[in-house]
Amino acid sequence: MTRVRPLAAAALLMVAPPAVAANGGGPGEIVAAAPTAAWAAIDPADLLILDLASGGRVVIQLAPLFAPAHVANIRALARAGWFDGTSVNRVQDDYVVQWGDATGKKALPPTVKAPLPAEYDRPAAGLAVRRLGYVDPYAPVTGFVDGWPVAGDGKRAWLTHCYAMVGVGRDMPPDVGTGAELYAVIGQAPRHLDRNIALVGRVIDGIEALSALPRGTADLGFYAQAKERVPIARVRVAADLPAGERPAYQVMRGDAPAFAGYVQARANRMDAFFVRPAAGADICNVPVPVRRAP
Amino acid sequence: MTRVRPLAAAALLMVAPPAVAANGGGPGEIVAAAPTAAWAAIDPADLLILDLASGGRVVIQLAPLFAPAHVANIRALARAGWFDGTSVNRVQDDYVVQWGDATGKKALPPTVKAPLPAEYDRPAAGLAVRRLGYVDPYAPVTGFVDGWPVAGDGKRAWLTHCYAMVGVGRDMPPDVGTGAELYAVIGQAPRHLDRNIALVGRVIDGIEALSALPRGTADLGFYAQAKERVPIARVRVAADLPAGERPAYQVMRGDAPAFAGYVQARANRMDAFFVRPAAGADICNVPVPVRRAP
Repeated sequence: MTRVRPLAAAALLMVAPPAVAANGGGPGEIVAAAPTAAWAAIDPADLLILDLASGGRVVIQLAPLFAPAHVANIRALARAGWFDGTSVNRVQDDYVVQWGDATGKKALPPTVKAPLPAEYDRPAAGLAVRRLGYVDPYAPVTGFVDGWPVAGDGKRAWLTHCYAMVGVGRDMPPDVGTGAELYAVIGQAPRHLDRNIALVGRVIDGIEALSALPRGTADLGFYAQAKERVPIARVRVAADLPAGERPAYQVMRGDAPAFAGYVQARANRMDAFFVRPAAGADICNVPVPVRRAP
Repeated sequence: MTRVRPLAAAALLMVAPPAVAANGGGPGEIVAAAPTAAWAAIDPADLLILDLASGGRVVIQLAPLFAPAHVANIRALARAGWFDGTSVNRVQDDYVVQWGDATGKKALPPTVKAPLPAEYDRPAAGLAVRRLGYVDPYAPVTGFVDGWPVAGDGKRAWLTHCYAMVGVGRDMPPDVGTGAELYAVIGQAPRHLDRNIALVGRVIDGIEALSALPRGTADLGFYAQAKERVPIARVRVAADLPAGERPAYQVMRGDAPAFAGYVQARANRMDAFFVRPAAGADICNVPVPVRRAP
């Protein structure tokens, strides 16, 4: 087997565009060099483990800071085993992958509450926002709170619909969903959905198990036939797993010097591949670094 | 087989987020209702047809207005049958799919020129820019030129790295590539690549044949083993095909009232699903409508 060597000297073995992990002071190098103090452990109570029957594993970090009622429901659904045997039912290219009970008839466990508050946004008061520092077409301010991409207007703050963010399916207003129907973003950030749907977390590992699924051919990217649906074996909260089976992840701290360097490097690529740094960045083009605990 | 009904009345059959084709004056309805005069035919000399050996077909619109030298090379490569038997070699999640000659040893036909001018941007003079009208973190101005998403600073203009845009692989500077190695964006717009690589077109049909491919597990998303590569059967310019085999596409005209309505609706979703219009839009979240000629 011949392995293609990226960035090889031979002119025809060209690689473009480069990955984040480029040579010469790129964002990837900064993240790799960040000291232990730059990382914070993610609470295993905030980790949702979704195992597809096919063997793919998707790890989701929940965001109780922004959607506490929906997150409580999602934990309750996982603890009741409610998602087990449901399926991925919708894959719309450049948009979302959505999963839940395709029949719409599976009773919710009594620990799940409804109706819930909307949780499309929350008070900005009490949040320490690390501002990104560049304009945004959707909001007066963007930045990071506790490792999350956020937007705000001074009074309210909300999570932004970036790639891999996870939201709560709902019907027409005033319905706000329960958390039993979830989706993940797999394309250009659909920021027009910000403040219209409750975002509850993000995929931090294994998104390719969702994003590389066959696209659905029915309206809205739903699978046209039941046999196309992708079965979900089980969904669990990591904290509920035996210690030996519990995966551990860390997120880069927003107050770490390495994070400041990372943001700066994302907005001003100086690696050898680049001829013209952008001098700007979109909140969804600066994904907060996450890693498995070493 | 049970088909899930989107936006059904039953509360558990919820669908969120909605597709572009939503009810109640959404962008999809505006596009569907646009009159014939709102559409312009795409020149078949600007249509590149990429057929995977698996049967998938990807249709790319070329952009000679922005990268004439690279587009001339790509047409020459297609006309020489050079891409036939090459492969998709790299699929990096939330970034790019890249194809070309994995061996790096396939000689280019004599009709292909090298080295080429960079074509990372071009003079703004002579271009009629239909401004989007919202701020952008990467450029002073964004908008549309002849159906293409562009950014500019008053003196220069350039195509933007939106989802499905196609660019030219290159090695380290001063290399600018030949057009023999191409990539398509399959994630959040990597706008930091703007003005660092020549963009030459966009996928207008069949992107799912690329975006749903398995992700590569080697560095930069390259396939680790040769057998994982996805063979390309042939690449042709539509104008070179017999008339009966030639697909025909149309792009919405930038000066059409329907286009103004579409942009307005993308930035201010008023369909029944939405509770809070964004009052803003990113250039890459307003894809220019394209359709097969009716």
